[in-house]
Amino acid sequence: MRKQGRHFLQIPGPTNVPDRILRAMDLPTMDHRSPEFGELGLRVLNGMKTIFKCSGPVFIYPASGTGAWEAALVNTLNPGDHVLMYETGHFSTLWKSMALKIGLQPEFLQGDWRSGADANAIENRLRDDTAHDIKAVCVVHNETSTGAVTPIDQVREAIDAAGHPALLMVDTISSLASIDYRQDEWGVDVTVGGSQKGLMLPPGLSFNAVSDKALAAAKTCASMKAFWSWEDMAGPNATGFFPYTPATNLLYGLAEAIDMLHEEGLENVFARHDRHAEATRRAVQAWGLEILCSEPNHYSSSLTAVRLPEGHDADAFRKAVAENFNMSLGNGLSKLAGRVFRIGHLGDFNDLMLAGTLSGVEMGLELAAVPFERGGVQAALSYLASEARGNAGGQEAAE
Amino acid sequence: MRKQGRHFLQIPGPTNVPDRILRAMDLPTMDHRSPEFGELGLRVLNGMKTIFKCSGPVFIYPASGTGAWEAALVNTLNPGDHVLMYETGHFSTLWKSMALKIGLQPEFLQGDWRSGADANAIENRLRDDTAHDIKAVCVVHNETSTGAVTPIDQVREAIDAAGHPALLMVDTISSLASIDYRQDEWGVDVTVGGSQKGLMLPPGLSFNAVSDKALAAAKTCASMKAFWSWEDMAGPNATGFFPYTPATNLLYGLAEAIDMLHEEGLENVFARHDRHAEATRRAVQAWGLEILCSEPNHYSSSLTAVRLPEGHDADAFRKAVAENFNMSLGNGLSKLAGRVFRIGHLGDFNDLMLAGTLSGVEMGLELAAVPFERGGVQAALSYLASEARGNAGGQEAAE
Amino acid sequence: MRKQGRHFLQIPGPTNVPDRILRAMDLPTMDHRSPEFGELGLRVLNGMKTIFKCSGPVFIYPASGTGAWEAALVNTLNPGDHVLMYETGHFSTLWKSMALKIGLQPEFLQGDWRSGADANAIENRLRDDTAHDIKAVCVVHNETSTGAVTPIDQVREAIDAAGHPALLMVDTISSLASIDYRQDEWGVDVTVGGSQKGLMLPPGLSFNAVSDKALAAAKTCASMKAFWSWEDMAGPNATGFFPYTPATNLLYGLAEAIDMLHEEGLENVFARHDRHAEATRRAVQAWGLEILCSEPNHYSSSLTAVRLPEGHDADAFRKAVAENFNMSLGNGLSKLAGRVFRIGHLGDFNDLMLAGTLSGVEMGLELAAVPFERGGVQAALSYLASEARGNAGGQEAAE
Amino acid sequence: MRKQGRHFLQIPGPTNVPDRILRAMDLPTMDHRSPEFGELGLRVLNGMKTIFKCSGPVFIYPASGTGAWEAALVNTLNPGDHVLMYETGHFSTLWKSMALKIGLQPEFLQGDWRSGADANAIENRLRDDTAHDIKAVCVVHNETSTGAVTPIDQVREAIDAAGHPALLMVDTISSLASIDYRQDEWGVDVTVGGSQKGLMLPPGLSFNAVSDKALAAAKTCASMKAFWSWEDMAGPNATGFFPYTPATNLLYGLAEAIDMLHEEGLENVFARHDRHAEATRRAVQAWGLEILCSEPNHYSSSLTAVRLPEGHDADAFRKAVAENFNMSLGNGLSKLAGRVFRIGHLGDFNDLMLAGTLSGVEMGLELAAVPFERGGVQAALSYLASEARGNAGGQEAAE
Repeated sequence: MRKQGRHFLQIPGPTNVPDRILRAMDLPTMDHRSPEFGELGLRVLNGMKTIFKCSGPVFIYPASGTGAWEAALVNTLNPGDHVLMYETGHFSTLWKSMALKIGLQPEFLQGDWRSGADANAIENRLRDDTAHDIKAVCVVHNETSTGAVTPIDQVREAIDAAGHPALLMVDTISSLASIDYRQDEWGVDVTVGGSQKGLMLPPGLSFNAVSDKALAAAKTCASMKAFWSWEDMAGPNATGFFPYTPATNLLYGLAEAIDMLHEEGLENVFARHDRHAEATRRAVQAWGLEILCSEPNHYSSSLTAVRLPEGHDADAFRKAVAENFNMSLGNGLSKLAGRVFRIGHLGDFNDLMLAGTLSGVEMGLELAAVPFERGGVQAALSYLASEARGNAGGQEAAE
Repeated sequence: MRKQGRHFLQIPGPTNVPDRILRAMDLPTMDHRSPEFGELGLRVLNGMKTIFKCSGPVFIYPASGTGAWEAALVNTLNPGDHVLMYETGHFSTLWKSMALKIGLQPEFLQGDWRSGADANAIENRLRDDTAHDIKAVCVVHNETSTGAVTPIDQVREAIDAAGHPALLMVDTISSLASIDYRQDEWGVDVTVGGSQKGLMLPPGLSFNAVSDKALAAAKTCASMKAFWSWEDMAGPNATGFFPYTPATNLLYGLAEAIDMLHEEGLENVFARHDRHAEATRRAVQAWGLEILCSEPNHYSSSLTAVRLPEGHDADAFRKAVAENFNMSLGNGLSKLAGRVFRIGHLGDFNDLMLAGTLSGVEMGLELAAVPFERGGVQAALSYLASEARGNAGGQEAAE
Repeated sequence: MRKQGRHFLQIPGPTNVPDRILRAMDLPTMDHRSPEFGELGLRVLNGMKTIFKCSGPVFIYPASGTGAWEAALVNTLNPGDHVLMYETGHFSTLWKSMALKIGLQPEFLQGDWRSGADANAIENRLRDDTAHDIKAVCVVHNETSTGAVTPIDQVREAIDAAGHPALLMVDTISSLASIDYRQDEWGVDVTVGGSQKGLMLPPGLSFNAVSDKALAAAKTCASMKAFWSWEDMAGPNATGFFPYTPATNLLYGLAEAIDMLHEEGLENVFARHDRHAEATRRAVQAWGLEILCSEPNHYSSSLTAVRLPEGHDADAFRKAVAENFNMSLGNGLSKLAGRVFRIGHLGDFNDLMLAGTLSGVEMGLELAAVPFERGGVQAALSYLASEARGNAGGQEAAE
Repeated sequence: MRKQGRHFLQIPGPTNVPDRILRAMDLPTMDHRSPEFGELGLRVLNGMKTIFKCSGPVFIYPASGTGAWEAALVNTLNPGDHVLMYETGHFSTLWKSMALKIGLQPEFLQGDWRSGADANAIENRLRDDTAHDIKAVCVVHNETSTGAVTPIDQVREAIDAAGHPALLMVDTISSLASIDYRQDEWGVDVTVGGSQKGLMLPPGLSFNAVSDKALAAAKTCASMKAFWSWEDMAGPNATGFFPYTPATNLLYGLAEAIDMLHEEGLENVFARHDRHAEATRRAVQAWGLEILCSEPNHYSSSLTAVRLPEGHDADAFRKAVAENFNMSLGNGLSKLAGRVFRIGHLGDFNDLMLAGTLSGVEMGLELAAVPFERGGVQAALSYLASEARGNAGGQEAAE
């Protein structure tokens, strides 16, 4: 296996952690009860509000994203509560399974794993729920297994149109800090996020951004919880501390990540992800392959899932890429296993890293004898060059 | 505040992370579904068995130690189950509170926060429980708030003497890899550990080491759980993988930590901690101050809690130390607040770091106008020098 | 300027330092007079012999390559000595200027800056020197300003054919550990090397690999020297030490670099560089641009210099690349300024990094309105894919 | 050998490099011809003027301090020039030997290796030199082999009183950024410095800070030079660049070091070093050992050399310390070999690191069976505590 040079970690997260963040984390662990820690704590607790675009609290767990899913549910819902979830793919299915495990009654609106959630279907179901049995609507913003985005503003409108009081909970694990997201403006009650995607950190931190309505629900919530309890968090968080030992070194990295995102500007971060996603899709189309997401309005800007032609094994293709070109691509999950591969183009990423990534895919297709048309990389480069030209013009105009 | 030079992080954890571990963690995050990751996973999953001295599985959570407490309880016990816990101090009290929060019925054997658990009291209580209502006995091996150790072998003997079938669960968060511990030999069913103490890592990983008996209990356990589920872990762990994104970079550090511990030799690690604890106690005694732990057989080798004379505020003393000498000491927790300070002498530590630590305490006592006798550092040095001399002799003899 | 993602440092050195080496260097500086340092010293001093393929000593300077040029001259030659040098480009010209500055009489065989040295011309000149006035022949193995290689074995044969006793001195700063080199086999007397190219280190170390004949010359050499003195080095080097404070942390990195090169295998390292150079040339040819090196037998495997069409400014092109694509390319030096750009494809490098690099060039040509044909990246990918396919077959055959 | 915990690197340089500087250096090497590099270059070139307290240029070599010695001489003096040097110890002797090697005629005023240079002796010698044959006076500010400081202002006055036009050259390798130094105010013409002491960097950079008078001398200087040439440096330096590849990653660290020194305040840095030196001397005196420096006005604030009683081997003592306590102490050099050991207390250092250091010495004396009185550490702590108390008072008074 060829291991020289830098590995291309092009799964849809964890992403390529920038040196600046790795170095920020590579400092001695500090006393988590010292005044200096309190300053760090406030800096990241407040800073994350600017990323979620929310005014309510953000709770930070020393845990991976799966934990933050659990936290969202056990802090707001009671055993036996009905929740409406939407089958956008593998991860929404896992969240639904978790809801079952912890004693909720999830209802799963069926999807085709090729698009985001259908707001109309949600609205219709909520209109039918005249008794307001449904306590929460849970959707995945960017379904990491398929590369399809659910327009959260439409879901919000659907709930409002139905006049339904359910909480809105959104998983942004693979969209946060990559795809435009607005907790307050969109009326989201709990947003679940993780550190290892757009935030450019290693895995190990996860988040709940919480609305007043969700905080109110938490006050009467009878679900068993301890580690995940918002209530236990809120007190110490007020002064920048945590109820148990936080993942200090990851918090160093988080502070750096927030700074980096604002240095670039969140809108620029989103535009960059949009550009790389569009370039990727042009490459896929030039190759004559099919983008898994069948709804262009739902295309993801953080990853693209690609279907291989029938009879061709996506995992054999990925293995050829890994062994020859030192690049990891995302696999197809559960019912998509062997059928699709996923290209992560999120996090600390630039045009030439994308060009290298797409080159690895194009050469891998050839090595794995997958039928395809050459020219995908070329198509991406043409687009990126034209964007760069336009960008340069725009900058001049602005001066 | 004087900030030059290296900070002395002498709280009883997190500890001074060695450069070798920080550098091991400071590498690019890898694909957690790649074959290379599987190798790393098996290396740490198997490696941790050598640290717990167990043959059964060790589950590794991307979470802090509080989470591993919860995992131990929710995987083995049913809602409403009685558990016998022992009040050794602040952390045993927190564990008891957690048991309540998640729906168990803890019974708390009262302690004085100055010693480890009394095995006789446990035996007596179990003998009375002829109906075997008590499903688990939970003790803290090394109570981090007081510096008192519970002899786990005695607790095992007490349970056996009572002929009681309860599970034995032990918290080793501040003793693992610092104080002798033997999961299998002592018949422990679930051991709870964390990364940020004797393992010399930053916080962010925690452990459950699990016996066959505990695994059997898990099969019939009806407690709600998802993130903490052993069952979900066991499958992927068999090939070195995890059911959700692991804290990859901390696992890099864990592999390095396991190597470092075996390079030194676990018995040498324990002897080193014993030596530093004895030197610390000699200093405290020379100062004329009182060691919080009143039972010499229970002295902790990883930390020493020291009482200040009545009328003197331990936090004012700690502040003087922090501001003048760039050292963090542990504070008194809950009912010990302001009354004691704690010296952590665990992890990647040596004689001169201890000498610096004790020097900071001695000068801080003077600055804070605490009445004390000089000579504590001198007493520690005399002991350490004599130990070094003995050690040199021993090595020569062995050659 | 777009600064996101990883910078592509595609100048012909310094090269992209791999994380493994950066981390090796990121450890505390050690006592350069301790036994542990002696072990490190011997490890790198002996290790470098395996890289130069020599049995004589290698002297390591805490200095950049320019210093090692000076060391080669002042340790072997006397003031006023005649030396025969060959004008392969900017760096051979600088070396010649240095020879003048330190009191030698260099004779400069004229070259066209588009090829390596002509061994016949050297042979002819030496045959004419019947009085053996010429004390040394100095050539640059890989001229970094032009991307042209001088076949050192041919130069050796030329000297031998002329029956001339001159020393042979070779600059391998941009070829060492990238292009096949054999100090002993080719009868080189002094080889000059640096850390920041094929050795994958930051700048700050340089080398003299020295033959017995050169050591003998040093014994009678009257040139003034102190810092560069081999004689002062040789004594302490015997036990792994240095006559003055060495660049300790760079030596940590050097030990790691030597290990990495042998893990890959030097022959594989050379083959990888050959492959990337060939891919690059195919791209240049597809673009319809001219490779500066006009002699295919002299093509460099570590860099490719490319001429821009008349009337197009290479520096404007490089600026467009830097600002839009976060990549540094090498500039044209002295008489090539503005006329050529140079692509470094050496060091810790792989196919996808090269694909990204060439993509940046192709898009930059478009942005800078340089006339070119599209398809360079495509041509490179076709070649790299076919090489990967061949490689896979070869590996299977070998098993 | 006991290797756990942090090594105490208490030689008089290299010093304990702070994490902040190691991390600054642990970033990818950049293009040394890019605009970004020019910014870095200007930052360090200008920044070093604030450390030397000079208005003229500072030249930065990618080389160790020995190289900067050579640079000072070959840029200003002509072959055969007379220079007046002063034998303060091993390093002044090495500098004198270097002067001989490069063709100068050094005259060496004899010293006793127990004090700094005697300004009166210099004045007398210069007065005798009515022909002004002596072209430079060279002294070592802080003699690293003995721990004795030469008052440079007195040497300046001596030269002026003699009405002599010689250049004044000063080696500040082990005093710069540790002991008060003022290039312009004291009329120094060339100051030689290095990176690995008070600047807290690894070895690999060295400096010449240069007056107008020295620059003028350089214009007519006929010594052979290339690598060390100021003239070649000056041009590129004007825009932040260098004539050959600089040691980029060390320059990252240098920029950080300059920031750190100014954050603390240079006067505070000097006061800290003074305090640690005084504490060390109190310890030595309490042990009943002799400080090598016999002239209290010349005591060094960056290191203390200690004589062992006759018949006791300082190297055996140092070995006992290294093997038992993981600390490196400085050895006795040349005629002091085996007779003295040296304690470095410079760089990124604090009270508790010093307490650990002195504890290691005190225990080592016992292990090595050197006759001594206990109480040295105690004496140091008493002094440091009183200083801390005074400091707190001073701060309050200032508010």
